[in-house]
Amino acid sequence: MPVIVATMIPKADQVDEVRAILVELIPEVHQEPGCKLYSLHEAPGKFVFVEEWADDAAMAAHGAGPAIGKMFSALDGRLDGPPDLVFLTPVPAGDPALGQLRA
Amino acid sequence: MPVIVATMIPKADQVDEVRAILVELIPEVHQEPGCKLYSLHEAPGKFVFVEEWADDAAMAAHGAGPAIGKMFSALDGRLDGPPDLVFLTPVPAGDPALGQLRA
Repeated sequence: MPVIVATMIPKADQVDEVRAILVELIPEVHQEPGCKLYSLHEAPGKFVFVEEWADDAAMAAHGAGPAIGKMFSALDGRLDGPPDLVFLTPVPAGDPALGQLRA
Repeated sequence: MPVIVATMIPKADQVDEVRAILVELIPEVHQEPGCKLYSLHEAPGKFVFVEEWADDAAMAAHGAGPAIGKMFSALDGRLDGPPDLVFLTPVPAGDPALGQLRA
């Protein structure tokens, strides 16, 4: 199952606004078919999604879907550059309960 | 619970060796107290751990523990620079089953 680590850098004066936009739209993404994990995290000046999708088709549908469209409209002008997307393949090892994002 | 995204860049001729080292040591990390998630992923020329720890103390113990010590001894000379570590805080939203790495 494809995994994505997506990093967004908010403009310095837009951190709270960006957080609010992301949090508001997450439930809609969770409704998307094949969404196994769409989890938001934060570090100073940085938001990081860790995502997992049932397959490439579900991931592609997400990328072209209405929720992402709304997200990027709302984020317009609020990020310091485009999101950094790292597309990953799981390498399962050790205890499955600890070694995989989702079984 | 603290989350880490750790990215390692193997030297071009060390990809298989690095993968083997990481996979071999993951079970030992899974035994460490407070390990909630220690999951390996791969993209061309890149290994990415997504980790979650019960608390800062468990994360710190991991960082100073024997497994990591063995890992970095074995990785010596095989990486293209030091690992990139991003320390994150979860921002739970939406369906908890989909919006958090671990409940």
